[in-house]
Amino acid sequence: MKNRIGIVGGGQLGRMMAFDAKKLGFTVTVIDPTPNSPTGQVVDRQIVADFYDKKAIRELGKISDFLTSEIEFSDSKILDELSQKGVQIHPSAKTFGTINDKLEQKKFLRKAGLPVADFIEVETKDDIQNAAKNFGYPLLLKARFDAYDGRGNALIKNKSQIDIGLNKLRRKKLYVEKFVSFTKELAAVVARSTKGEIVSYPVVETIHKNNICHIVIAPAPVDKKVTNKAKRLAIKTMQHLKGAGVFGIEMFLTKNGKVLINEIAPRVHNSGHFTIEGCRTSQFEQHIRAVTGLPLGSIEMTAPSAVMINILGERQSPAQVKGLEKILKMPNVFVHIYGKAETKNERKMGHITVLGKTVKEAYNKAIKARKLLMI
Amino acid sequence: MKNRIGIVGGGQLGRMMAFDAKKLGFTVTVIDPTPNSPTGQVVDRQIVADFYDKKAIRELGKISDFLTSEIEFSDSKILDELSQKGVQIHPSAKTFGTINDKLEQKKFLRKAGLPVADFIEVETKDDIQNAAKNFGYPLLLKARFDAYDGRGNALIKNKSQIDIGLNKLRRKKLYVEKFVSFTKELAAVVARSTKGEIVSYPVVETIHKNNICHIVIAPAPVDKKVTNKAKRLAIKTMQHLKGAGVFGIEMFLTKNGKVLINEIAPRVHNSGHFTIEGCRTSQFEQHIRAVTGLPLGSIEMTAPSAVMINILGERQSPAQVKGLEKILKMPNVFVHIYGKAETKNERKMGHITVLGKTVKEAYNKAIKARKLLMI
Repeated sequence: MKNRIGIVGGGQLGRMMAFDAKKLGFTVTVIDPTPNSPTGQVVDRQIVADFYDKKAIRELGKISDFLTSEIEFSDSKILDELSQKGVQIHPSAKTFGTINDKLEQKKFLRKAGLPVADFIEVETKDDIQNAAKNFGYPLLLKARFDAYDGRGNALIKNKSQIDIGLNKLRRKKLYVEKFVSFTKELAAVVARSTKGEIVSYPVVETIHKNNICHIVIAPAPVDKKVTNKAKRLAIKTMQHLKGAGVFGIEMFLTKNGKVLINEIAPRVHNSGHFTIEGCRTSQFEQHIRAVTGLPLGSIEMTAPSAVMINILGERQSPAQVKGLEKILKMPNVFVHIYGKAETKNERKMGHITVLGKTVKEAYNKAIKARKLLMI
Repeated sequence: MKNRIGIVGGGQLGRMMAFDAKKLGFTVTVIDPTPNSPTGQVVDRQIVADFYDKKAIRELGKISDFLTSEIEFSDSKILDELSQKGVQIHPSAKTFGTINDKLEQKKFLRKAGLPVADFIEVETKDDIQNAAKNFGYPLLLKARFDAYDGRGNALIKNKSQIDIGLNKLRRKKLYVEKFVSFTKELAAVVARSTKGEIVSYPVVETIHKNNICHIVIAPAPVDKKVTNKAKRLAIKTMQHLKGAGVFGIEMFLTKNGKVLINEIAPRVHNSGHFTIEGCRTSQFEQHIRAVTGLPLGSIEMTAPSAVMINILGERQSPAQVKGLEKILKMPNVFVHIYGKAETKNERKMGHITVLGKTVKEAYNKAIKARKLLMI
């Protein structure tokens, strides 16, 4: 049995993948520039190097049967090279190619017949003004590459704000998107295995704070018709994308009940952390199964509802957990601390998942629990 | 917050403790003589040394706020020394003292008013013959120290077998126990925290194969009155023992419905592995909570029943997992591989837990799943 997994990126996503990879008997090596990274702490070996250090990636390739990533890895040349040497890489360079360029991603989605907000490539101020004629204000100016957690977006409310937006995103390749006035943000974590098997976890509502995923409610408290529609879109996305692994499909629910796909994240996703306790198979185990060609696991929920709240840092200092003893007194509350040495403002330091009989019960408990914890 | 845990022993028990310790944000160092031990693979650091290497244990003590163990650690001197330096050690030297000497353990249980089989200390053949006058044959000749998985026991069916038993257990301190003709073996995993809080997981039936725990059925398929009685005994044991951590209380159910305590195991226990998926809080997280003074978690089951079957090695060779893809197709079947490099006959290489609506459904599925896996 091929049982050696290499992970590019040593943050919390790699860490939680590693727990399940180890459980299934894999050996795990991670590459990350920070020594003793969250993932490095819990795996067989960490290679301390930058993600784009070719020598280090080659070394990782040499000792891995499977290579996967917790980041949007974009050095397709080295992936092709390792792939030719027999390393199985998922998501593949091709999948990253479609997803990493947000404009290409939108084109891919539109071509697949999936509903997205109108968009157009832009370079100059004139291009943006032309787009505004079609889409109207406000509109979103977006970077095509390396944008996440709201970085790489500029909201342009009127003509006078174009220069501010262009300045914010200077030196970046850009496109413009029609602003969607949504009532809720939804997400579905989907897995597709190298054998073509596809499963979708329950559709959730995601609540953002400063563009960072903050709270996730499972199942999404919306009409069953809406979640069914969202689930169908998520599965259809994977049928067309064809990549292997776990993906987060972020969606908007508009006032008139339309569901639009906002973005595909090519990795285990913050909106799926609730699956660790909330579903029979966690998204992390699912990812390991998917990229190693194992059958996918049950996505059945273990409780009627689950709410996840991120533990975002609120200061800059060495990390120190306070209040754990208060939270752990609460039944059905599960705490995950990522082992990061430094707390920073808005840095993802951990998360809390609450299982409950109703969404309301779990939600209220999650808010209460979060307030009890300092890090 | 004190967040550094040291574990003595790097096998599968330490490994599963470590997963949960890391989840809660602790740093973990393990001491084990085998490099890259099952626990060493998943923790911050392994000190490669014998458990009785005083220098190494001192080093572990220096970098640990809490010290715990997956083995029956019996060097009380070094524990006392570290304890005086401020390391919190659980189970404590005192607790190990009561438990490690099986004769002392029996005396402790009897003194606490807990039901045990009749027993008496013996040294010579004459002592054993005298014991047989009171207890009758068959009787069990047992080693007082270092006995587990059936090693250190000799069944004496009649007078002529005394010499065979004495020869098998030569050079060991001994006692004799009245043979209990039981209908089932039961076990309860109990936790007691350093704050005195006590919880007992559902009472299970354990089925042994060559004296090694093989199958665990939760909840035990016996009359509710019996499980209630067993649970009360387990809790009472902890009330008297007063140690902190998770303990396995092994019991016999006799033909006439009596429950006797057979043995206390001072550690997370094979009969509690089902709690990882089968209960809201696993016995491993519970142990970490208990020894670090955190509140204990819910022991509620996540499904009506759970059956665990051990993956015992069936040959001597480098370990290689085969058949994983067949098992993972089965819903509600969870596989744990311990990462041991070598398969050996009857060595614990991993386990499978199955959740089900009924004990029968889970049991049949577990037997089927086990047959599909080779290691």
